Amino acid sequence: MPRTPQTFDAVDVIRTKRDRGRLSDAAIDWVVDAYTRGVVAEEQMAALTMAILLNGMDRAEIARWTAAMVASGQRMDFSGLRRDGRALPTVDKHSTGGVGDKITLPLGPLVAAFGVAVPQLSGRGLGHTGGTLDKLEAIPGWRAGLDHDALLRQLRDVGAVVAAAGPGLAPADAKLYALRDVTGTVEAIPLIASSIMSKKIAEGTSALVLDVKVGSGAFMKTADDARELARTMVDLGADAGVHTVALLTDMSTPLGLTAGNALEVAEAVEVLAGGGPADVVELTLALAREMLAAAGVADADPAAALADGRAMDVWRRMITGQGGDPDAPLPVAAETETVTAPAGGTLTRLDALAVGVAAWRLGAGRARKEDTVQAGAGLTLHARPGDTVTAGQPLLTLHTDTPDAFGRAREALAGAVDITPAGPTARAEPASAGHRPVVLERVARS
Amino acid sequence: MPRTPQTFDAVDVIRTKRDRGRLSDAAIDWVVDAYTRGVVAEEQMAALTMAILLNGMDRAEIARWTAAMVASGQRMDFSGLRRDGRALPTVDKHSTGGVGDKITLPLGPLVAAFGVAVPQLSGRGLGHTGGTLDKLEAIPGWRAGLDHDALLRQLRDVGAVVAAAGPGLAPADAKLYALRDVTGTVEAIPLIASSIMSKKIAEGTSALVLDVKVGSGAFMKTADDARELARTMVDLGADAGVHTVALLTDMSTPLGLTAGNALEVAEAVEVLAGGGPADVVELTLALAREMLAAAGVADADPAAALADGRAMDVWRRMITGQGGDPDAPLPVAAETETVTAPAGGTLTRLDALAVGVAAWRLGAGRARKEDTVQAGAGLTLHARPGDTVTAGQPLLTLHTDTPDAFGRAREALAGAVDITPAGPTARAEPASAGHRPVVLERVARS
Repeated sequence: MPRTPQTFDAVDVIRTKRDRGRLSDAAIDWVVDAYTRGVVAEEQMAALTMAILLNGMDRAEIARWTAAMVASGQRMDFSGLRRDGRALPTVDKHSTGGVGDKITLPLGPLVAAFGVAVPQLSGRGLGHTGGTLDKLEAIPGWRAGLDHDALLRQLRDVGAVVAAAGPGLAPADAKLYALRDVTGTVEAIPLIASSIMSKKIAEGTSALVLDVKVGSGAFMKTADDARELARTMVDLGADAGVHTVALLTDMSTPLGLTAGNALEVAEAVEVLAGGGPADVVELTLALAREMLAAAGVADADPAAALADGRAMDVWRRMITGQGGDPDAPLPVAAETETVTAPAGGTLTRLDALAVGVAAWRLGAGRARKEDTVQAGAGLTLHARPGDTVTAGQPLLTLHTDTPDAFGRAREALAGAVDITPAGPTARAEPASAGHRPVVLERVARS
Repeated sequence: MPRTPQTFDAVDVIRTKRDRGRLSDAAIDWVVDAYTRGVVAEEQMAALTMAILLNGMDRAEIARWTAAMVASGQRMDFSGLRRDGRALPTVDKHSTGGVGDKITLPLGPLVAAFGVAVPQLSGRGLGHTGGTLDKLEAIPGWRAGLDHDALLRQLRDVGAVVAAAGPGLAPADAKLYALRDVTGTVEAIPLIASSIMSKKIAEGTSALVLDVKVGSGAFMKTADDARELARTMVDLGADAGVHTVALLTDMSTPLGLTAGNALEVAEAVEVLAGGGPADVVELTLALAREMLAAAGVADADPAAALADGRAMDVWRRMITGQGGDPDAPLPVAAETETVTAPAGGTLTRLDALAVGVAAWRLGAGRARKEDTVQAGAGLTLHARPGDTVTAGQPLLTLHTDTPDAFGRAREALAGAVDITPAGPTARAEPASAGHRPVVLERVARS
């Protein structure tokens, strides 16, 4: 996109959106570029983003805003990737973030096992949701920083890579996200969608599968909000020529039985070995099927690739390729404590947000970008919603290197668990009967 | 108001208003104080003011916001003013700003002639509306800067003073106004009302009469908006113990026959001499009656005080007291040009905004705070709406020291004049028949 020669008055642009008007293509190009260059001041962009949050943007405005953020930096290009003389399709996955969400770890190698390149540029965790890079860094030797050539080489040779997104991709987004974080304007669907999609479009993947989380542990608390975000991102992908599909998935309770960096790596390896918790396997396979379909791979059987070790082979090569030792013992926290069931019955609720906050307080996450994380910290779950528990049995194990943290972690868990006594009453409540599906809805191009 | 010990997270305060919640008293106290001290950043206040503009504040929130701005600085106190052994009542007038609005000049001396103190702390003009200080500075020798003691002395001895508001009154408002100016959040009635009233409450007047302008040359373009602003300010005054009344007055056409600093001083002196344009006299008397009633002066006849020279005596003492020479010739612009009537008929419209912008471009106003103004620049009107004109007669005279400005001033006046041909058709249009009243509505305490 060439830089537009037209200039605007920032106050006029703000007033247009404040008064529920449409921002023209030229106005959007100008304001995103001028903000990136510091010509539009932080306080002006803050007023504009609040007006966008409250008055919205239409599909064309969001698409243009996203394109302007892509144009603020470099674009990567994987179109020249070839293996054995044929072009290598690329497909990426993005999750909006949840508790215990280690799906990227088994998913990348699994999809790559079918001859597809999976370039996952990830971030670090902030707040109660963990980051994929933090999880992989629990593996001794593994490193996230790859230069462009090394990244292309690993994509061509191994197929799967997880690397830190460089500062050159959509720098407008990085600047804008930091501003939204301190001005109460994070929760604007047009801005969330354009933030995610600008990075994915700049990354240059040809197809994208989105995992949009819904529930207490997710950014989107309701299915309506999650569906709107998913629809907005799928449309943005379509408008930018990236084949995009979204799954709405449950985040009312943690995924799997672990939350925390090394604990989640261990669970991911179980899945790659053909085992692992049913919900993690279900979601890994659902996302793999979408990614393989998007990449044009017909008749793939991802469950077989987990069972017969093909996905594990790619995992080992992916870890080794980035300096890690897949056979090294994972870090273990210095101290543990157990939370037991206060009564017997059916576990009807185990709140994702509470578990996420507890893991964060135990040391698995960071409050500020510059904080470090503990590799071994987190929680192990011994029961999931739908399970029958007996009074006094272990429900959760807390792990940390800093035992002072146990008290605040337990505070976070207060009220996080519901147990319904067994008997006729409980059987009359359909919500408490059995395990819920992980995948709630699918949103594809309209 | 003691500073609250409670502290808040700025993002939580922003989110509350973003989500249409009420801000608590403690949250308002904190955010205004923290912003004044630089603890709440400009971009955070920008997001909050946009949320206030779009989601509003209720009466109690606006009152608390205003009180917090008053508490950000010093308060003046005129309660000890005495003359001849009796307490001197104080009453002030504030106009929301219009074109040709020189009413403060005759009004202060007129009201002071009845033994009332009129402490008018004024600002300089910005944009198309002139500032009272700029007008008085056209008088050779007159100066706006008085220290507190000199101000009190003049109030006690003369009764009328017009001075620059010091930086110590409501500094939060000064900082916030500069922010609103660059972030498209000037047009928020709660913020306009609290900005005006915080300064007037800090000034310490015991009664206040507001002139809320309505029409093209005013900030409020519709009677509904003006009424809401007036009602909000009258309520704020009542809540702060300041007896407050508002008049809604017409600003679709300029007040009187002049716009520009020295030109308006000359017209004000005509009014003080018992003459002057009917609309200027009408509004001066209407505001004087409200101010005298608010000050508890019974049976006052302000028209008589204009006719018999009592108001002129106070004017001369007020100007002399601030270093000015009331007998010195006023500055005259170096060049003039005349705009003539393109056709004969009834002048049905002479647009206030167009005349204000033309006066500004001729040099009477400033685009930036640091600009200087030309004392002699502006416009003289030779006809007003309702008057009959003949083709080719002079309609307007343009005055400037910088003749390059004539072209852009004429551009501002394009389309500013409607002339309806005389005859049966024109007689059928009631809007074009005769002169309109200046005072449209009165808003008093509910």
